[in-house]
Amino acid sequence: MRSALPKVLHPVGGAPMLAHVLRTAQALSPERVVVVTPPDAPEVGEAARRLRPDAVDVPQRDRLGTAHAAQQAREALAGFEGDVLVLYGDTPLVRPESLAAMSAARAEGASVVVLGFQAEDPAPYGRLIVEGGELTAIVEAREATSEQRAIRFCNSGVMCVEAARMWTWLDRVSDDNAKGEFYLTDLVAIARADGARAAAVECPEAETLGVNSRIDLAAAEAAFQARMRRAAMEQGATLAAPETVFFAFDTELAADVSIGPNVVFGPGVRVETGVEIRAFCHLEGCTVASGAVVGPFARLRPGARIGAQAHVGNFVEVKNATLGEGAKANHLTYIGDAEIGARANIGAGTITCNYDGFLKHRTTIGAGAFIGSNTALVAPVSVGDGASVGAGSVVVEDVPADALAVARGRQEVRPGAAARLRERLAAEKAEKAARKG
Amino acid sequence: MRSALPKVLHPVGGAPMLAHVLRTAQALSPERVVVVTPPDAPEVGEAARRLRPDAVDVPQRDRLGTAHAAQQAREALAGFEGDVLVLYGDTPLVRPESLAAMSAARAEGASVVVLGFQAEDPAPYGRLIVEGGELTAIVEAREATSEQRAIRFCNSGVMCVEAARMWTWLDRVSDDNAKGEFYLTDLVAIARADGARAAAVECPEAETLGVNSRIDLAAAEAAFQARMRRAAMEQGATLAAPETVFFAFDTELAADVSIGPNVVFGPGVRVETGVEIRAFCHLEGCTVASGAVVGPFARLRPGARIGAQAHVGNFVEVKNATLGEGAKANHLTYIGDAEIGARANIGAGTITCNYDGFLKHRTTIGAGAFIGSNTALVAPVSVGDGASVGAGSVVVEDVPADALAVARGRQEVRPGAAARLRERLAAEKAEKAARKG
Amino acid sequence: MRSALPKVLHPVGGAPMLAHVLRTAQALSPERVVVVTPPDAPEVGEAARRLRPDAVDVPQRDRLGTAHAAQQAREALAGFEGDVLVLYGDTPLVRPESLAAMSAARAEGASVVVLGFQAEDPAPYGRLIVEGGELTAIVEAREATSEQRAIRFCNSGVMCVEAARMWTWLDRVSDDNAKGEFYLTDLVAIARADGARAAAVECPEAETLGVNSRIDLAAAEAAFQARMRRAAMEQGATLAAPETVFFAFDTELAADVSIGPNVVFGPGVRVETGVEIRAFCHLEGCTVASGAVVGPFARLRPGARIGAQAHVGNFVEVKNATLGEGAKANHLTYIGDAEIGARANIGAGTITCNYDGFLKHRTTIGAGAFIGSNTALVAPVSVGDGASVGAGSVVVEDVPADALAVARGRQEVRPGAAARLRERLAAEKAEKAARKG
Repeated sequence: MRSALPKVLHPVGGAPMLAHVLRTAQALSPERVVVVTPPDAPEVGEAARRLRPDAVDVPQRDRLGTAHAAQQAREALAGFEGDVLVLYGDTPLVRPESLAAMSAARAEGASVVVLGFQAEDPAPYGRLIVEGGELTAIVEAREATSEQRAIRFCNSGVMCVEAARMWTWLDRVSDDNAKGEFYLTDLVAIARADGARAAAVECPEAETLGVNSRIDLAAAEAAFQARMRRAAMEQGATLAAPETVFFAFDTELAADVSIGPNVVFGPGVRVETGVEIRAFCHLEGCTVASGAVVGPFARLRPGARIGAQAHVGNFVEVKNATLGEGAKANHLTYIGDAEIGARANIGAGTITCNYDGFLKHRTTIGAGAFIGSNTALVAPVSVGDGASVGAGSVVVEDVPADALAVARGRQEVRPGAAARLRERLAAEKAEKAARKG
Repeated sequence: MRSALPKVLHPVGGAPMLAHVLRTAQALSPERVVVVTPPDAPEVGEAARRLRPDAVDVPQRDRLGTAHAAQQAREALAGFEGDVLVLYGDTPLVRPESLAAMSAARAEGASVVVLGFQAEDPAPYGRLIVEGGELTAIVEAREATSEQRAIRFCNSGVMCVEAARMWTWLDRVSDDNAKGEFYLTDLVAIARADGARAAAVECPEAETLGVNSRIDLAAAEAAFQARMRRAAMEQGATLAAPETVFFAFDTELAADVSIGPNVVFGPGVRVETGVEIRAFCHLEGCTVASGAVVGPFARLRPGARIGAQAHVGNFVEVKNATLGEGAKANHLTYIGDAEIGARANIGAGTITCNYDGFLKHRTTIGAGAFIGSNTALVAPVSVGDGASVGAGSVVVEDVPADALAVARGRQEVRPGAAARLRERLAAEKAEKAARKG
Repeated sequence: MRSALPKVLHPVGGAPMLAHVLRTAQALSPERVVVVTPPDAPEVGEAARRLRPDAVDVPQRDRLGTAHAAQQAREALAGFEGDVLVLYGDTPLVRPESLAAMSAARAEGASVVVLGFQAEDPAPYGRLIVEGGELTAIVEAREATSEQRAIRFCNSGVMCVEAARMWTWLDRVSDDNAKGEFYLTDLVAIARADGARAAAVECPEAETLGVNSRIDLAAAEAAFQARMRRAAMEQGATLAAPETVFFAFDTELAADVSIGPNVVFGPGVRVETGVEIRAFCHLEGCTVASGAVVGPFARLRPGARIGAQAHVGNFVEVKNATLGEGAKANHLTYIGDAEIGARANIGAGTITCNYDGFLKHRTTIGAGAFIGSNTALVAPVSVGDGASVGAGSVVVEDVPADALAVARGRQEVRPGAAARLRERLAAEKAEKAARKG
């Protein structure tokens, strides 16, 4: 990856790949979750605990192969007698449905269940040899006969194993191979030698995409986005240009939402029915209530709560603020740490001055209030229901309900002065140019 | 579609699919236009009348098939003796050229002309059986022999029929089939039984794309955009990244227009020669005269008229306003309901305060005027030719030509006060943190 | 191209195609560079001299074919005895590696070396006939036998020729062909007739893409972008959506740079390690130091120098200005012709008023200074280290270090006035509506 960040913490859909895998595993309600972390990467364990507080993280001190990695979980799984599902932090797209199918195959008696896929180009993968419904072997690519090389059913690495026998089988895995590593795939042969059965479950190739480079990461992101876009459209959202809409892992869209080209969702966005999100919007950590219109060129940051039928227009940023029902902030505005009442109109160029260099302060605007354009609201400050603020004001004191506040300089006009100024500036410019030349 | 909006009103290229079909039909100068609308969807008839005031809309009270739908037009077409062309509101991409070819085939003697296409995957479609230049049958997919299934020439549903005989033939269509519906495709067999001839005309498959889901809608939008992008480039526009430019059905571009990545055109845009539209622009209902430069990050809303050689820069919105030749508004500006004179310079952060909460008012800026940055212009207001406004002003009264207006507070400086303030705020922050901890 | 601009000056990756070709040639450290320019296009020669001051440009007065064009360079290459490499201004994607391979083939004894490619669709191209490692002929598509038509190895036109013999060979090229033009490809047969050897070198088809229309130009741009995106990822940049990131020919990215969807790089951008460039940014002619965060919706223009750990947020434009280490300008701000000190905080809506209509002036902000929101800084002006400016101020005089400056109008509040105003405006609106109705 050429990165200081551990591989499994690189993001897909706004969440670390590790989070995707934990989330997928969660769908099966596992009794225990053990995360085997790479050597010298304490951030991975920290991330695992943050993402799933009941996870146990165990570092693998040396990179000695997948079976060796699995061995690290032994202590944390002591006494556990169910199914052990082995997933990979760099294979983020496996769906819960596939894991459930593996679990079902276990329930039907196979002690080892391997997740396979029909590879478009099987060349680099181990082949799954299935005979009479049983998985009889996993043959590495370089050891395959020409007949086996014709097989396109390949090993994803994802495995489900009977816990009671797993550890003794793992003890029998050897590192007597080209790379000197302990391979989890050996479990199939070992289990079968013990008289246990192995089986393979198939999933689409796209689910098994593993990430080993930034190019793979981009491919995983693309596959993830394709899945989210399709789901959004199937649930009744209109995506005018689906390939230009980017979702996060947890984006929630109601039906009859319309999304224009070039919209980016960060994590934590919920959009209700009938909302229109126009082109060039960036949303994260926010809610948009039914019938609201957002954008184009709007940015909703964490804590933005846009009320029903409200409008957030171009070059408007909303952060940690509520816009009441039908409120409007349509142009070149920054609303931070604020409460805007229903039907309030926030003029173009309005700025809530929420930060004094040390602390953030709140601005409260009442229902039906009218904030004239290019106004600065110096928080903490409130503007009452139905109050008005004159354009170009700097509001530093509270404005009572229904009152009118104006805070600006008096206009002075000097006849002819612009013409004189123009002459002087032109002369200066000419003189400057003359000095240079 | 999982939508409250009737299917044919979902948009492609900024116009309802119905509008595309009406527009295409219009290219043949039809004598009458009848729109058969779905049950319980009065919006469709309203839309049809709005889009084409001379259209007659007839509701189909029950969904009994395409032939039944065609029957609904009988009364509205009483006495009409030409060709009846049957189009579909959910098939928006058929080109006028294809309809003209159908009309020509009618003129050559075929009483029924069917529009067909070579399907990449013919499986779901009825096959067109053509023998000796005649269309001898339409065979439904499930009734096709294995030989017929090999045929890739398929039925689009679009049909052109001799009006004089259409109604008696429609009367003979039966609903004795699996779905119990009356199918328009039966006309081919019925006409031939009457000794009339049928013919098929071929068009590219992309034209026949029908929309039955949001995913289909996205596919239709993509096909429409591909067509528009190609046409734009063929007419001499440079599209640096064509796949990121989104046109409306009526976008007009002159030659030697340059369009950067990520530009969205809403309806009603006309761009003259030599214009540069940079990345991340959103234009609708506006004109841009020759040599103007727009963006990046500009938004032109309905009624914006950008003059020749004018510049509209980043984070600038223009609505219902004229920018004169060579005028500049380059940064963080809102110009609404305004007239800006030639060569005027509008400083960064300028806002026209055009709305008082009830009515919109106009701002007029003269030729060569200079508006200092961060100025609010409280409309109705005018700034004369050659006048200047000092930066940070709030202009509430008219400024005569060549005059200089300044309207801002006097600057007070308190030495050392920032250092003292900083200490106080830091102490407050520390205290607040201490209370929390 | 349907353009007033000569073809080779149309841009790919932000530079004229001609610049790409000159840059590629430069990789071989040529002794002389001669640019043969089209008739009546002096701009091409001017561009060549600007791009590479030591280039000699020679106009081809008539369009008489590629060999005729090569002849125009004769005088400029008088006395030169090395290898002559013939490139095309409309074929911008040939890589230096391919030219080096041609040069190596020359060094191994071939007097004429032709660059070929395996064509996906060879139909329109001349075929390269290679026998025993020698290029024995170039056969034009229309003169190829059916056996030759099966050959997919095609002529790109790019050629490397022994200078000492080139001119006599060129003299022997005839225009006795369908178009009456002199073809450079004839050199292969002429050289071989003289007992010299010819060879072919292969490159990927994508490198040989020639531009003859806006559609070709878009294809060249797409191929160029694909190459740049892949290189960026291979060097350790994360591109969440590579297909939406647009690079210039000279974009420099360090490792562990993260780039969100929809980012456009104009020429002259250098980004250091650990930088995050969020969605919807537009950068040109700027540097971004390590750990800085840019965007979403930021515009960095020429001369912007963003310091380490600095933040440039949404709807912020920076031009010809330095942001010190850890400085922040996060919302709706224009910083032009300025020097911002380390850790300074620039509030939302701040505008540097740098232009007086004639000249640009500088703004200087000290380290740790705090500029309140919606402030206008009227340049030339300076704010000292640790100084503060109150929100909504118009700063026209220098502010000393640690001082507090406030420059705004006093707030007046008129109780009940908003309610009365509302009634009056509503009445006016109603009256206006009544007059209209």
